[in-house]
Parts: sequence; structure tokens; C-alpha cells
Amino acid sequence: MSHRSGRHFLQIPGPSPVPDRVLRAISAQTIDHRGPDFAEVGKKALQGMKSIFKTSQNVVIYPASGTGAWEAALVNVLSEGDHVLMYETGHFATLWKKMAAKLGLKAEFIEGDWRGGADPDAIETRLRADKAHEIKAVCVVHNETSTGSVSPIAEMRRALDAAGHPALLMVDSISGLGSIDFRFDEWGVDVCVSGSQKGLMLPPGLSFNAVSERAYDYSKTAGSRRSYWDWQEMVEINRGGYFPYTPATNLLFGLNEAIGLLHAEGLDNVFARHQRHAAATRAAVQQWGLENLCTRQGQESGVLTAVLMPEGHSADAFRAVALQHYDISLGSGLSKVADKVFRIGHLGDFNDLALAATLSGVELALRKAKVPHQPGGVEAALAMLENTQFGQTAAA
Amino acid sequence: MSHRSGRHFLQIPGPSPVPDRVLRAISAQTIDHRGPDFAEVGKKALQGMKSIFKTSQNVVIYPASGTGAWEAALVNVLSEGDHVLMYETGHFATLWKKMAAKLGLKAEFIEGDWRGGADPDAIETRLRADKAHEIKAVCVVHNETSTGSVSPIAEMRRALDAAGHPALLMVDSISGLGSIDFRFDEWGVDVCVSGSQKGLMLPPGLSFNAVSERAYDYSKTAGSRRSYWDWQEMVEINRGGYFPYTPATNLLFGLNEAIGLLHAEGLDNVFARHQRHAAATRAAVQQWGLENLCTRQGQESGVLTAVLMPEGHSADAFRAVALQHYDISLGSGLSKVADKVFRIGHLGDFNDLALAATLSGVELALRKAKVPHQPGGVEAALAMLENTQFGQTAAA
Amino acid sequence: MSHRSGRHFLQIPGPSPVPDRVLRAISAQTIDHRGPDFAEVGKKALQGMKSIFKTSQNVVIYPASGTGAWEAALVNVLSEGDHVLMYETGHFATLWKKMAAKLGLKAEFIEGDWRGGADPDAIETRLRADKAHEIKAVCVVHNETSTGSVSPIAEMRRALDAAGHPALLMVDSISGLGSIDFRFDEWGVDVCVSGSQKGLMLPPGLSFNAVSERAYDYSKTAGSRRSYWDWQEMVEINRGGYFPYTPATNLLFGLNEAIGLLHAEGLDNVFARHQRHAAATRAAVQQWGLENLCTRQGQESGVLTAVLMPEGHSADAFRAVALQHYDISLGSGLSKVADKVFRIGHLGDFNDLALAATLSGVELALRKAKVPHQPGGVEAALAMLENTQFGQTAAA
Amino acid sequence: MSHRSGRHFLQIPGPSPVPDRVLRAISAQTIDHRGPDFAEVGKKALQGMKSIFKTSQNVVIYPASGTGAWEAALVNVLSEGDHVLMYETGHFATLWKKMAAKLGLKAEFIEGDWRGGADPDAIETRLRADKAHEIKAVCVVHNETSTGSVSPIAEMRRALDAAGHPALLMVDSISGLGSIDFRFDEWGVDVCVSGSQKGLMLPPGLSFNAVSERAYDYSKTAGSRRSYWDWQEMVEINRGGYFPYTPATNLLFGLNEAIGLLHAEGLDNVFARHQRHAAATRAAVQQWGLENLCTRQGQESGVLTAVLMPEGHSADAFRAVALQHYDISLGSGLSKVADKVFRIGHLGDFNDLALAATLSGVELALRKAKVPHQPGGVEAALAMLENTQFGQTAAA
Repeated sequence: MSHRSGRHFLQIPGPSPVPDRVLRAISAQTIDHRGPDFAEVGKKALQGMKSIFKTSQNVVIYPASGTGAWEAALVNVLSEGDHVLMYETGHFATLWKKMAAKLGLKAEFIEGDWRGGADPDAIETRLRADKAHEIKAVCVVHNETSTGSVSPIAEMRRALDAAGHPALLMVDSISGLGSIDFRFDEWGVDVCVSGSQKGLMLPPGLSFNAVSERAYDYSKTAGSRRSYWDWQEMVEINRGGYFPYTPATNLLFGLNEAIGLLHAEGLDNVFARHQRHAAATRAAVQQWGLENLCTRQGQESGVLTAVLMPEGHSADAFRAVALQHYDISLGSGLSKVADKVFRIGHLGDFNDLALAATLSGVELALRKAKVPHQPGGVEAALAMLENTQFGQTAAA
Repeated sequence: MSHRSGRHFLQIPGPSPVPDRVLRAISAQTIDHRGPDFAEVGKKALQGMKSIFKTSQNVVIYPASGTGAWEAALVNVLSEGDHVLMYETGHFATLWKKMAAKLGLKAEFIEGDWRGGADPDAIETRLRADKAHEIKAVCVVHNETSTGSVSPIAEMRRALDAAGHPALLMVDSISGLGSIDFRFDEWGVDVCVSGSQKGLMLPPGLSFNAVSERAYDYSKTAGSRRSYWDWQEMVEINRGGYFPYTPATNLLFGLNEAIGLLHAEGLDNVFARHQRHAAATRAAVQQWGLENLCTRQGQESGVLTAVLMPEGHSADAFRAVALQHYDISLGSGLSKVADKVFRIGHLGDFNDLALAATLSGVELALRKAKVPHQPGGVEAALAMLENTQFGQTAAA
Repeated sequence: MSHRSGRHFLQIPGPSPVPDRVLRAISAQTIDHRGPDFAEVGKKALQGMKSIFKTSQNVVIYPASGTGAWEAALVNVLSEGDHVLMYETGHFATLWKKMAAKLGLKAEFIEGDWRGGADPDAIETRLRADKAHEIKAVCVVHNETSTGSVSPIAEMRRALDAAGHPALLMVDSISGLGSIDFRFDEWGVDVCVSGSQKGLMLPPGLSFNAVSERAYDYSKTAGSRRSYWDWQEMVEINRGGYFPYTPATNLLFGLNEAIGLLHAEGLDNVFARHQRHAAATRAAVQQWGLENLCTRQGQESGVLTAVLMPEGHSADAFRAVALQHYDISLGSGLSKVADKVFRIGHLGDFNDLALAATLSGVELALRKAKVPHQPGGVEAALAMLENTQFGQTAAA
Repeated sequence: MSHRSGRHFLQIPGPSPVPDRVLRAISAQTIDHRGPDFAEVGKKALQGMKSIFKTSQNVVIYPASGTGAWEAALVNVLSEGDHVLMYETGHFATLWKKMAAKLGLKAEFIEGDWRGGADPDAIETRLRADKAHEIKAVCVVHNETSTGSVSPIAEMRRALDAAGHPALLMVDSISGLGSIDFRFDEWGVDVCVSGSQKGLMLPPGLSFNAVSERAYDYSKTAGSRRSYWDWQEMVEINRGGYFPYTPATNLLFGLNEAIGLLHAEGLDNVFARHQRHAAATRAAVQQWGLENLCTRQGQESGVLTAVLMPEGHSADAFRAVALQHYDISLGSGLSKVADKVFRIGHLGDFNDLALAATLSGVELALRKAKVPHQPGGVEAALAMLENTQFGQTAAA
């Protein structure tokens, strides 16, 4: 047995650290998923997820990763050859598009520079051009985990409406939900995809679809061949609190605990906390003289901050130094920005001092790895935290 | 908070009770699934599952229920319109067939009476008739969880070989693996489907495909549109101990612990234990004057025993009595045998005294529910256990 | 790693099996025992223990075994040379007397035969003879863990009152509290000693004194030299929810959970459950043709049953067989009855089927060890359980 | 349920944060403390503690707080009226002296200023003056938890030897053991007292005596009336791995895990880590312009740093701000220095980034509470950590 003293800092943009209470909830003995006690667990989880999505419509819970819920969203409403409009916010948008293509959809990409969220004007323009309404769905990533940029989802709905286009609005909020503001009903989203291991503070293994009545009705007659991901049977059987196949019981125990924690803190407080920590992180990045990958002001993510390495320095070598010397896991750059950025996760079960530790880890590793930078990043972050209450949002 | 004193007896045929050590393993803090520590976890899990499947070929682990692994098995090698031969051993064989149909396959069923395993002769006969080799796969349930019958898988291979038929042999051992003898390589299975919550003693949420080289090669060019379930990317990335999408990290911690427990006991001892407890259960059933659903001698399951209720008595009412009065969960009859049988799970993390408790629960509930029966079932089971060592198999 | 499948049956008369919820509560992160959150924990524990002792007077919680609380009870009110009257109910009464002697007290024993509780008439007679009131305290074991006999504590108070004797009434209810009826205030007890690992369903490591105002006042001027065990500082500092020295924080977390479980079941239901299981156990013992160590009717313990081995058979050899073959721990005979009795614990977090398992373990081990007995003990116990509801007391 | 996001920082000088692995070990089901499996646990714990104390002599483990082990040390070798020489290093030395007095000993105090460890010269001088060898024991606190000063224990032995005095050398290393260098045998200590909740990284509830053969022999004929604390029966029964009364089983599970962690890291690495973090903490304190309570160079504790508040500022008000706003618990000043110092714990399961978080918490709270200070303390600490490897000691 080897052992490193102290707690590992898991500061990737998900999985995020799981609160002890949630881990304990998960370690309760498994129960009969067809018995009366389970129905309470199931109903509570489904109802709880509605409160997190802010929807009174449908929520589906899969024993699967977020990738599975992506597939579920696509196959329930889209059929081979269907045209979907997607927006290249970064790596995960690209993966979702690849999946769409693999599933036989005609996936059109509005190219992006990976430095901001999706552009509603570009989408509106494209939709206006689609007089024949061939585009069946618009797919946007809410919080692009690879870049730390947020797409303005309410604006997407306005773009669709302005264009008078009937396409479904499908949103990936795998890493946004539970950390940054999301309002399924109010924003007119048709399908939202999410996962357990980010703002929901669970281990990976559960994923979600929120489904509008319109999308649900659509799925009755449309969609690809599917079985595991099929909404109909799920929604039907969920009414009683049960599932059509064996659910991931223990993760559901944890989900109910985690939803309780989110509401105990208050969703608005949760969102404000993430914004505040993101702002403090950006203050540190600026002081270091490094560059934030996200350049679109107001679209910086509350969940993570992706930082560009100075030319000629390997982000992965830097991350390895951070892990080896300071026992902190940072996120890697993915595909286009591989080895060029590292990502700091500041989501989930997190607080001011954990942020101070995280930024100290980055700063120490910058020194250790001899990455050119100005010192004082931690100091700058502390200064930003200084005048705000714990649990309150920064003044500006 | 309401509370019933003492431990609940979860004696359904899965999920089976999770050992405390496995629950504790699952409650360890989640780690970075892209970091170096994870690679060790991943490799250990994949290698460990090979030892359980008894294969040196490929194993795929999904963050999904067993139902997902069913779908994975089908979509990786079969395309819309492909002909598959399935055997009606019971409810789960029927569900798998329904799934095949839903996925666009031409699923042919050899009808069965739900009272025994699949018949290799019937399969051989059908295959011989298929001169054109239109049947792409033969799908058989190893341990039919709805009936407590076991299909002779080695015989299936012999049937295919005798018929000189090239169809793939696909086996569902969701509830068999880790409880009753299974030998992927030796028996010439092409695809085996399994799940975490039965003999593997985990909570639900992981499922598995074991894949022969032949099936794997086949999948490169064949199969349905798929993404989440696709073997290729999985197997490729698994080589390094990683996964193409976020794995269910904490369940993998538990899987490694559970595999360790199985090997610590010894797989042969595990199998013998299940046989011994099944035999003792049948002795009790016989003494009660009740009928075992499985009538094919030698095909009775080591995992569970399905018991027919006397005419005019509701199995579900009986199970409700057992749950309410004796805090024991028994399995329900499914579809054709709904309300007609109850199922006693004697699988997983189990021992002689837990069996005594289980059978006592059944006997007490028979009395309480006024189900006609002869007393002395527990006594008969104890007598059968008497002359055999703990951890040893019954003399026969 | 070696591994025996299934759950061990810990059927000694304490430590009793700890409910999973309590184990999880204990595994919460330790907190600052001087911080505001701790005060809530401390107050809840102290208040909770008052509800279990049924007292509105004082409760003291020690980070110590029950043996420590024995010492605490003695040294707070008795000084070197003080005369105490004790009653030989069994091994633990004898140990307590030895401790008293070791601490310099003049400990007088009313001899007993270890086959029943303390006799109030004998005590009254002795007290009447003590005209000078030299006896400072009467010490009685409520539930004698070595024999399975219960002393009638309310009768002890009546004996003191009838004799008009001012001695303090000190009671050891280490193994009785939380399992069988105990009423500190109503029964006029002055000091009661208890421990965590029996009816309170915790791991060992906490022990308790309930202290009447009279005993507390007495301790201000009387008692032996003491520091760790001193009530005064404890009670004083406890008012704020804190402790004079570091408390066993995590066990207190568990204590609060366990008290919650007891009240959720209802103390009267808890007591009735123990009586019912004790009655069923005695039915089994009788059927086996074995002898209960306790012969005084109405004084048989609800906590445990001590069973005499047939002449010429070693109880310890029998227990070793039970442990080796059936993974059940039974209690050994102690001192006078060493190797002559084995003890069946049926206390704490327990239910009907766990009792069936326990008695099945005894019966199987009797056979395996070739101990002469009549079969059918389990059957007899089931018959006794049959007509009573789970969670209800036996009709007689 | 209220909830604060993120992990609480428990930076008092004990209890220290308990590693998750230890918490999980503690949450294993309780076992029979008289059964064969327990003997392995007991032997491992006793042997393990010898390796931590660095002794081949005797170790005694109590289910008790450290305060209990203090009492045990005194009562086993000292009798009413015995003369003991103690040294006023701070609050805990004073409490130990009060206890000695309460137990009837004639406790003589060499006064100290609470700003350094015990002075061996003063002790030697006093011992030389004791021609009649009336002093039976010299009692010194190794790591004074109230002040953050370390007494040079090897020097104490040299002082006794130089004075040719036969007194026993008794050392309190409750908060030192497992964090800073301690060598029972090499340093010629006769009795050492320790506890579980500091360097041993356990919850409170276990405490220890290491006992030299000389002290053990002494205790056979000397000492006060005692029972619970008596070494003789303990050491005797411990030989088989068992205990004379019920041990705190689950804490022993945790102890074995914790000892394993300490050895996995390597005791020398553990000590170096504590020194390095203490040095970095002092660098921060110096930068803030605050004063370390310990002024004796070379005697600053690796376990904690006690910081003097500027005149006119309340340490307790400051600590309340730190707790409320930054969710960090700091230690309070005790008795003489109440409200004048706060204490930063940097012991146990700790690492560089946790230190950065801790010092950030202090710095943020200094600002928030408007305590006059120079900024840049965290920065200064990071600079000190910069040139040293994780897990290595500072260059000096």
C-alpha cells in the first residue's frame, strides 16, 4: 500500500468531488427495485430532478453515462437521415455531432472558434434559410466542458421563435446543470441531456433527459430504432416510481441525497457560488498573465476555467507536475486544444478555501514546471473573495 | 423516520445483497477517470472480469443495466432484418426477443414451456433446416431468472457444430455469471451478456459483454447503427485501462472488490455453494408439498428457485405477507406466471444460516397467508445441509 | 484475503450487530468538539440517553467501556472502606464485586446460584439487620449477561424502602438498557451503569452513568479520589453540550442515530420484541431437551438465553463447531459455568428471520458436534413466532 | 437540513481530519471481541503501536480519551502523597498537574512562560537538589498542544542521568506521537501517554500508554488503587491479542488502518512533512507581522502553530469569523492565553494544498475581522513550499 498524506484535490471539470453524505447514501444496502420502498426512492428522484431542471414536464433517468443520454436524446426524436443543426462550441459539441453522424443523422455544424458559447444570431440566420424546415432539431451545448464557455440558451429559444422554425431545441447541460442557471420550461427547451458527476455531485453512472411534452409526443411516432433509451416505456412505468429495467439503485440513493443538499444550500446560492469562484479564478489567471480560453465576456463558465499555456509549454507536462507534486488533478485540453490548455474545475461540492487550495496548486505547479507567469494569482483571487460573504455572490 | 429492527432479507434473484466490503469500496471518493490511478482500476476490472467469464478474449464493461448489455450484444453484430434464433426459456428470453424485434431484427422463437432450459436438440434441428445459413445468431439464456432453469450452454455449442452452422452463439448469463459454472472460451460462446447485481454482488449499474475474437471481427463490418454500445472504440481504449466515455468509477471500485471476494472463496467453491443451497431449497419446497416451476432434472438453477403456488392462491398476496410480517423480499412471477409463482433467490453473498432464515421466512409466511402446505420445510433443508461442510458442496 | 460468503451472525450477548445506518453515522468526518456544531450533537446525545434511561435527572457519557462506567459509579459515591452490599447473580456481578474490592471498598456478597436474578427479600433482610446503616450502597445487576437472568429492580427499591435503609441503589444495566424495560426515575434507582454495545446497537467504546440528584449531591462530598470519572465537572460542562475532555465524537454520532432508531421502533415495541424472541428461543431449547441456565420463571432475560450443555459435552467445543461450520458466534460460559453453557444473544438490531437463522445455526451445530438433543427446535420456535405479528409481542 | 458546500477545514490541533480509508475501516461490522478473528486485530494493533512508539517494551490501549491515559500513567506507578516533578509548558501540563493533585499526589511545578518546551537544565538542577530521591517521577509534555512548543525529551533523559536520579520519566505525547519524532526506547522514557485523534488520524476514543519494563515492574507493587487503568491485567491478557474488558473494536479497526497509512508514507517522511508545513506556517505568520507564541528557536511544533493576536483584538472573535465565513475551525487559546492566541493545526492527514487552504482561511479571516496584519502570508508560505518536493522536508 502506498499512501500520500491528505486529501486529493479533484479539480477536473467533472467528476467533481462527491460529498461524504452522498457517498454514505450510496453505500446503503441495495433494495428490491420492484418493492414498495423503492417506489418512494424512484418518485423522489424523478420529482427531485424536475426541480433541478426546473420543469413540470418529463424527466428520464438512465443507468448510463452522459454519453448515453446524448444518444437517448437523439434516437428518441430523430430518424436516420434527419437533418440536425449543431454548433461547434468545443470538443463535446464535436463529439455529439460525431455521434449524430454515427447514428445516421445528417449533422450540420456551425463552426466555432472554441472561445465562447453558441451564437444565437448564427443559428437564427441558418434557420431562416431553412424555408423547408428540414432541420428537425437544433443542438447546443449549454456549458462546454472543454472550453469553459456557456451558451445563452434562452437566446436560442428566441432565435428559433424569431425564425419561426419548428425545430426542437436540444441542449446538453451535462456539466452545467446544478452549477449554473438552467430553466428548462422557462427557456423553452425541448430536450436537455445531463449527467450525475458534475453539479449533481454524484459518481458517474446516472444520466438524464428532460423532455418537453412536445418532444415526448414527437417521439411516439418519430425517432430511430431504440430499446434501452426509449422514453415511452420509461415515462409510463416511472409514474409508479418504478423503471422498466433495473435502475442503478444505489446511485439513486445518492441522487436523492445530493438533490437535498442542493436545495438545502438553495439553487440560487449554488449558482452564485459558482460565479463567484469562477470570477476569482479568472482574477488569478489574469494575474499570472495567462489567457482564458473563453474570450466572450459574459460567457465564461461558472463550472470550470480553461487556461491557455504560454507558447512552447506543454499543458500535459504541467498537469503531470501538479499531480505529482501537489496531488491535484487538473483537466486536460481535448482534441484541438490538446496539450495547449489545462482546465480548472471549480464546481460541485466546493468552497472558498478549496478554491484557494486549487489555485495554490496551480501556482506552485507553474513555478515547479517553470512555466512563465507572474506570481500573485492566489493573492488576487483572495482579494476578489475578500469582500464577499461565504455563500454570497461577488458584488460584480 | 420509521424503522424495522434487524436486517432486511433481500431474497429476490437479484439484486442480491451487497457485501459490506463492496459497499465500502463503492463509497471511496471518485477519482479522475483520465488519471494514472484510474488506469490501474480499469485494467484490474477488465482483467478480473475475464477471469470470471473464463476468457482470454474481450470483455466490455458498460455503465448500464443488463438490459443495455443485451442491446449491445445485438447491435454490434446484427443489422436490421437479420435473422436470429432465440429460445423461449421464460420471461427474460421473451424480453430479449422483444428487444430484438424492436431493434428491427427478425427474431424467431423456439417455444418453450418455461419449465426448463433451452433444448439443444431443437436448436440443432432448426439450424440443420437453415441450409442457407440465414440465421446469424443463436441467442440463449443461461440462467433464466424468471423460472429458475439453466440451459446447457456447452450443448448449444455442440448443437451448432453438429449442424455445421456458422451462426454466432450469444448467451445471456446476467443472473448466472459468478453463481453457476460458466466457461466462455471452453464452451465456445461468441457473446455473453451479464450484469453486476447478481452473482457479482454489486448494486445494479454495470453490465458486461464478453466477446469472442470472431464476434469482434464480425462487428467491424456488421451490426446496426450504434454509438454508446460500440465495441470497437471500447476495446481499443480499454487497452490502456481507460474508457471512451466516463465510466461508473465507484461501481468499478466495487467490482474489483467483489471479484477479489469471489476468488478468495474460489469460483468452484462459489458454484458448489449455490448448488448446495439450491438443493436444500428444493428439499424444503418438496416437504411443503409445493411444486418447483423447473421440472427438467439437472436444469434446476443454483441461483433461484421458482415455486408454484397452489391453485387459487395468489403468489403476490403471499409475497406481500412475507414482506410485511417477516421483512423478506421474494421475487414475483413474471408475465405468463404472474401471481402464480414466487421466486426464492439464494445467490450471491449468502450462507447456510441466511438460507435457513430465508426458508423460515417462506414457511412462516405460508402459514400466515394460509397457503396449504406441509410443515417441516426448514427442517428438511437443515437435514440436507447437515452432512456437508460449510463452503462444501452437497454429496449429491 | 480469505473470505466466507454471506453475513456473519454475531449472536453473542453483546456487542450486538450494529445497524448499517449507525455504522454510516459513525463514519462521518470528525468535528471540532469545542465548536458550535458539536454542542448540538452533545445535547442531543445527553437528552437522548435520558429518554432511554427514562430519567429527568443526570446522565453522564464516558469514552470508555462499561467496565469504566462501573468504576465511575463506585468512585463517585464510595470511599475506601465503605461497605457495599452486592448480589451474586453471576459472572458480571462477581467482577463488579472484585472491582469494588480492588478499589478498597468492603464489598459484601449475597451469594446466588447463578440461575436467577437478585432476590429482593434477601436484600431487605440484610438491610434490616444493618441497624447502623453502615451499608452505603446496594449494587445489583439488572440483566446478568453471564446467565440470562433479570433482577427485579423495582422490587429492590421496595426492599430498601421497606427496610427504611438510606443506602444508594446502584444498578448495572449494561446489557439490559435498550432491550428490556428499565425506568430509572420510576424505580428510584440512584446510579445506573450502561454501555453502548448491547441494546444501544453501537460498537463498544461509550458507557454511561445515570445519576439521581441524591447520588449527585452525595458525590460532591463523598467518593474516592478520581479525575477521569468525576461527575461534577462532567455534568457542569455537559450543560452546554460539551465535555471536560475530548469525547468519542464519532461514537456519539452513532449514538444519536441509534437512539433515533429505538424511538422510531418505539421502546415498548423494542421490549416486546426482545421478550418474544426470548420466548421463541426458550421453546427451541426446551424442544432440544436442553436446559436453560435461568430457572427462575419470569426472570428469563429478553437479551440472551444461556443454555446448559449435556453432561460430558464441552460448550466451547460446540461453539467452535458453530463458528467454523455455520459462521455464527455464540457466547461462552464464564468462570463458574465456563465450558458448561453457551449463550445465545437475541438482542439489539434483530428480527424474526435472524432468530430463525440463529436457532438453525445452533441446531445444525448440535448435530455436527454430536451433542445429544431432540431435533425440531427451530420448528418449535417458528411455531411460537407464528401467531404473532412482526413487531408485536407474543400473546403470552 | 442546512448545508454548506464543500469540505470543512478542521484545522484545530486535534482531532485532526480522519482519512476516508480510516473512516471506512471504522464502519466495518463489529466482531466478537472474544473470537479468533479479534485476536488478529488485537495483536496487530498492539504490535503496530509499538512500531509507532518505537518500543519493544509494553503498550497498553485504552477505550478512553487521552485524559484517561494520563490518569492511567499516574495511578499505575504513583501512590497518594508521592512527589512528582512537572514542568509548566502550557495548559495541558497544567491540567495534568491538576489531575495529579486531584489524585492525591504532591505535584511540584517548575514554572514556565508557555513560550517554549520544558527546560532540561531546570529539571536537572531540581533533581540534583533532591538528594533523598523523594521525587518519584518527572512528567513532561512532549508537544504542548496549547502553545505549539516541543520539549526535548532525549535531553530529559540526559538530565535524569546526569543528576543520577532514579525518578521515572513520564511523557505526554498525546499530540506529538505520529507527527513529530518520538523514540520511546532510545530516549529512555518510562511511560508515554498518547491519544488517537492527533497524529494517529483517528476519531477520539482510544488512548495509549507505552510502559518501560522498569515502570511495569514498579507498577506491580506501587501505584494507587485502580481497576480500569490497571496495566497488569491488560498486559497479561493482551499477550493473546485480547483485552480484559470490551475494547473499542471499531476504533481498533481504524487504528490498524491508520498505522498502515503511516508506515506506507514512512514515519520519517511523516515527520519531515510536519516540519515543512510548520515552517511554511511560520513564514506566513511572520509575513502577517504576527507573533508566534513559541519563541524558543528549534522548539516550534510541527503539529500546530499558536499565533498571538495583536493587542486589543479578540482571538475568539477572529476564530468565529473564520468559521462563519470560511468554514475553517481554528484552535482557541486556553486559560492563560484564552482569547489571546489562535492555534493553527497542521497535523495528521494533511498536504501542501490543504495548508494553502488553511493559511488562506486565516488570511481571509484576518481581513474580514479587520485584524491589523501585512498581506502576503499565503504567498510567503507558497514560496517556502516551492523549492521542496511534496513529501520531502524543507531544506532547513
